[in-house]
Amino acid sequence: MKIDADVFRVQEGNTVDLGLWHTRTDPLCISGKQYHKRLKDHVKQLSALQRMLYASNQHALLLVFQAMDTAGKDGAIRHVMSGINPQGCQVCSFQHPSPRELQHDFLWRTTRDLPERGRIGIFNRSYYEEVLIVRVHDSLLQAEAVPDAAADDAIWQGRFRSIVDMERHLHANGTRIVKVFLHLSKEEQRTRLLARIDEPDKNWKFSAADMTERACWDDYMHAYGEALAATSTTDSPWFIVPADNKHNARLIVSQIVLDALTGLQLSYPTVSEARRHELQAVRKLLSTAG
Amino acid sequence: MKIDADVFRVQEGNTVDLGLWHTRTDPLCISGKQYHKRLKDHVKQLSALQRMLYASNQHALLLVFQAMDTAGKDGAIRHVMSGINPQGCQVCSFQHPSPRELQHDFLWRTTRDLPERGRIGIFNRSYYEEVLIVRVHDSLLQAEAVPDAAADDAIWQGRFRSIVDMERHLHANGTRIVKVFLHLSKEEQRTRLLARIDEPDKNWKFSAADMTERACWDDYMHAYGEALAATSTTDSPWFIVPADNKHNARLIVSQIVLDALTGLQLSYPTVSEARRHELQAVRKLLSTAG
Repeated sequence: MKIDADVFRVQEGNTVDLGLWHTRTDPLCISGKQYHKRLKDHVKQLSALQRMLYASNQHALLLVFQAMDTAGKDGAIRHVMSGINPQGCQVCSFQHPSPRELQHDFLWRTTRDLPERGRIGIFNRSYYEEVLIVRVHDSLLQAEAVPDAAADDAIWQGRFRSIVDMERHLHANGTRIVKVFLHLSKEEQRTRLLARIDEPDKNWKFSAADMTERACWDDYMHAYGEALAATSTTDSPWFIVPADNKHNARLIVSQIVLDALTGLQLSYPTVSEARRHELQAVRKLLSTAG
Repeated sequence: MKIDADVFRVQEGNTVDLGLWHTRTDPLCISGKQYHKRLKDHVKQLSALQRMLYASNQHALLLVFQAMDTAGKDGAIRHVMSGINPQGCQVCSFQHPSPRELQHDFLWRTTRDLPERGRIGIFNRSYYEEVLIVRVHDSLLQAEAVPDAAADDAIWQGRFRSIVDMERHLHANGTRIVKVFLHLSKEEQRTRLLARIDEPDKNWKFSAADMTERACWDDYMHAYGEALAATSTTDSPWFIVPADNKHNARLIVSQIVLDALTGLQLSYPTVSEARRHELQAVRKLLSTAG
C-alpha cells in the first residue's frame, strides 16, 4: 500500500505545536526484509524520475533537511538518495558561516549552492538555521552585525517573510522546494547520544556541543514550531516526519521525494518531425559508411 | 547651492511615462572649471563617508546603473567613484549570462556579487536586464528555459515582485539600494553613435549591436517605464537622471550617492571605557619600553 505522506504535511496558515505531532508511527513494514525491498523499490523509481528531470531540464528540486542532532538527517539522505546519479544530484551541508559569509545578508551563502535546472539539490541544514540556532543563541545574531537587530519578535517575522519571498521566487522560476523536519523525541535522542558514547565506532559522532543544544530543547521546539508554521506554503511545504523509528522515517522521506517528482509530470523531451528526419539521415549515413 | 536630487526620484506607486521626463536640465555650472571643482568636492565628501561606512561595518551600499547605450554609465561611474578607496568599493559589469548562469533563477548570478557590509557595490547593468533586454527580445527569455514562461504580462509582473521582495530583504539586512537610470534622448544617442564612428579613438566603443538595440527604442522606453514604476520604493528608489549633458548627469549622480551615504548617519565606532583603558595601557608600554 502506498504511504500517504500528506498526513505529515503542514498546511499553509496553520500553527504548529510540535508537542502535538507524533515522533513515532505504526511500523510501515512487518520486517527488515520488507523494509529493504520497499526502500529499494522507491529508490529505483526516484532514479528513473531523476533522469527525466535531468533530460527535460526545466525544473530543479530542492530538498531541505532540518532536525535536532541524532535525528537521522545524514542517514536519511544516504539511504534515500544513494541510488541516484550524482551528476544530477548534489548535497550541501551547512555548518558555521565563514567570516566572509557573515558580511552578507543571511540568505547569501546558501544561494550559491541552489540546484541548477535539471538537478536535485539537498540542503543538510539550510538558511532555516537563521531562524533556529540563531534564534536560540543570541550571540550568533550579534555576530551577524545586522543593523538595528534587537532580538525581538520583529526580526524573526522579517526573516520568515524573506524566506517565503525567496521560495516563492524560486518556485516561479522552476525550482520545486520540499522541506523535511525529522521529528525526534527528547527521550529517543537520549538513547542515541548514549549509544554514541557507549559504542566505540560511534564515538566520532559525539560532540560536546550536542549536549549544549539538548539543554535548549524547549527553545528549539518553540523556534521550530514557529518557523514551520510561518514558512510552510502550498507551493513549498514542510513535512514533519516522525523520526524515532529510522526505517519508517526513511520510507516516508522517500515517498515525499517521489511525490514531489511525480507531481512535476516529467517526460523525456519530444523530438520534432524535422529532428526525427535529421536523426534518420544520420542513421542512414552510419549504416552505409560504417 | 546644493543640488536637489529628489526631483529626479520616482515616487513609490507612481506610473512612469519616460516621454514626460527630461533628458536635459539647465546647466548646474557656468563653466567647465566650476564643474570640475564641484565634482571634486563631492568626490572628497564621498571618500570620507565611504571610510566611515567601512569602519562602522553595518551597512552596504548597492548602486545600480541602467541606461541605453552611450548614455554615459561607464563615464559616470569612473568620474564619480574614482576618488574612493577600491578596497571598499567594487564595480561589477553584467554582460551576457553564461550557460551555467542560465541554468539558475534570474536573480542568482548577481547575488554572488552583492556588496559585503561596509562596502559600496556598483552594478553596471544588473538583474534589471531581466525585465529590459529580456523583455524586448523574446529569444532571450526562451534561452532561460523558465517553465511555463509565456512572454505575457504575468511573467514581468512576477519578476517585478521577485525584485521588490529581494530588495526589501536586502534593505532589512543592512544593504541600502539606490538605482540610477541615465535618461538619454534618441537624438543625443544618434550624435554619440556618429562620434563613435567618426572619431578613430572612439571606434572601439562602437558595436553593430548598438544599432539593433536602437531600433527597439520605443520597446525599451516602454519596458523601462514599467520597470521603474513597479520597482521604485521608498527604501530602494529609482532616480531618472537627465543624461544628454554629461557634466550635469555626473554631478546629479554624485549628489544622489552623497545623499544615500549621508542618510545612514554614519560615524566611527565609539570606543568603550574599558577599551580606552586598554589603549592607554598599551600606550604606556610603548612609551617606556620604546
